[in-house]
Amino acid sequence: MPYKLMRMQRADANQAPVKRPVMLAIAGDSAAGKTTLTKGLVEALGPERSTSVCVDDYHRYDRQERKGLPFTALHPDCNYVGIMEQHLQLLATGQPILKPVYDHDTGRLTRPELVEPRDFVIVEGLLPLHTKLTRACFDVTVYLNPPEEVRREWKIKRDTQKRGYTVDQVLAEMDRREPESEAFIRPQRRSADIVVRFAPIAGREDPPGTPLSAELLLRPTIRHPDLNGVLSKGDQRAIHLKLARDEDGRPVDALHVHGYAPREESHVVEKAIWSQLGVDAGDPPDTLGKLDVGERSEPLAITQLLLLYHLLEATR
Amino acid sequence: MPYKLMRMQRADANQAPVKRPVMLAIAGDSAAGKTTLTKGLVEALGPERSTSVCVDDYHRYDRQERKGLPFTALHPDCNYVGIMEQHLQLLATGQPILKPVYDHDTGRLTRPELVEPRDFVIVEGLLPLHTKLTRACFDVTVYLNPPEEVRREWKIKRDTQKRGYTVDQVLAEMDRREPESEAFIRPQRRSADIVVRFAPIAGREDPPGTPLSAELLLRPTIRHPDLNGVLSKGDQRAIHLKLARDEDGRPVDALHVHGYAPREESHVVEKAIWSQLGVDAGDPPDTLGKLDVGERSEPLAITQLLLLYHLLEATR
Repeated sequence: MPYKLMRMQRADANQAPVKRPVMLAIAGDSAAGKTTLTKGLVEALGPERSTSVCVDDYHRYDRQERKGLPFTALHPDCNYVGIMEQHLQLLATGQPILKPVYDHDTGRLTRPELVEPRDFVIVEGLLPLHTKLTRACFDVTVYLNPPEEVRREWKIKRDTQKRGYTVDQVLAEMDRREPESEAFIRPQRRSADIVVRFAPIAGREDPPGTPLSAELLLRPTIRHPDLNGVLSKGDQRAIHLKLARDEDGRPVDALHVHGYAPREESHVVEKAIWSQLGVDAGDPPDTLGKLDVGERSEPLAITQLLLLYHLLEATR
Repeated sequence: MPYKLMRMQRADANQAPVKRPVMLAIAGDSAAGKTTLTKGLVEALGPERSTSVCVDDYHRYDRQERKGLPFTALHPDCNYVGIMEQHLQLLATGQPILKPVYDHDTGRLTRPELVEPRDFVIVEGLLPLHTKLTRACFDVTVYLNPPEEVRREWKIKRDTQKRGYTVDQVLAEMDRREPESEAFIRPQRRSADIVVRFAPIAGREDPPGTPLSAELLLRPTIRHPDLNGVLSKGDQRAIHLKLARDEDGRPVDALHVHGYAPREESHVVEKAIWSQLGVDAGDPPDTLGKLDVGERSEPLAITQLLLLYHLLEATR
């Protein structure tokens, strides 16, 4: 019945042409820092120009139902992957979706909500880079890759303080999820244009309260701003760029931002990234780098700024 | 960014080609008989080959929220019409959807459900023929058009027995809805290939328990089975076909099936319709014509058979 497709297209042709949004994926395991990173980006872009979508809402089963199942929420079979693919395609082509909603507080699936794509759509969650089709929907892809001990600390903190679990429950759940983390979450690392690793630097004794450092692997799968001129000179500086090989031997740039990096040094890098966008003479948004409790992290600020650069660049 | 469309299409191209289902729309006001008609069709086709979807699930507001709004559930603004269009297009092109769910018992919007199109998709509800794009998704379209006094009786019966309302509440709600029925529901009549009117015949005194008669307007917008040879001879028979003009002057065939039509006469017509399909020598499914409480209606049976004919014919 191809005639029906033709009728549908003709019926649809009267509508205004739609603008396609720029799509960013932020993938990573539970409590890897996806929400913090996303929040700062939405704030910097302005909520009127950006939308964030959490693809963990595509859970096929609620918490109660999962108890009787042989896999955890990380498993693709535990998610409507086909519908996630469909909705990402719709968003990527500028269409609205009626997105399912998973309530993390109650563990229940509830009433879906309308999401209309704005100029920028940030898609974060456990499995946004799981399939070839989802990956094809994005302009920029990020994988958050903290060391497991850092992630464990973050997850304990969040799940005991905000989701009512005990430490033992969180640890048991992490153990139960480990095989699926390995099988389905971590393989997404290789599909990311940028791999971000927040971690303490081995061997340093920074004063308490020093933010974590960050290592950003910049893969040449997209065109990053040229930081070589600004940063290559001194490995001894708090922020530096290093030509390296990825785990699989492929060439990457590794941008290191030390947690103790002074605001001034961070600012030089931020301005260098920002000026390459050539938008205007202004400074980059100063809302970047905000942590949960009003603290500031220069490594987070630079990570967010780099992503902002790519989002704005993709609109050209 | 048309390159992204290309990437998406390439990523999608590995999947098996999808089969497009035959789509039937059954539109009509609240309690016009849509569910009864649909149920018999799904039963005749077999649930493994058919799916039914109620587009009233696309309500934008739940019952509580609607109380503060200046329109009723019939109003397009009270429904996600754009999402309904999108989902009908997806189903019509053989894609699954995650369909919202409105719980008529509680009046609340709940967890959405996966609907995978089978060979036949029957879409019933208040507004399935409301837009040009939704109409383009269907192979066959029906509008149920009982006289208002019949519909009122049906609605009182259902809403008091199954939905816990009082008679006064039902009548008040019907009054409140009347302007929107006129503005949005009834105009769909003109987009239907078949208009079905179950009603008593004026002036006849049939014994109590006699099923309602039916008038089926068969518009030449689709190719109906040729009943002229079987039926044109006698207007005096319990089932007859009459060349007529529609309200707007357009030519139609009007098939009348009287409520007192004997099973034998109905059977002759059913066989005539069925044999024109040329499927096999067998009889049409004898599950057709079932009413709520085990009663049988020949007018309903013939209506359902005619729709079955069109559904099966559209698969050729």
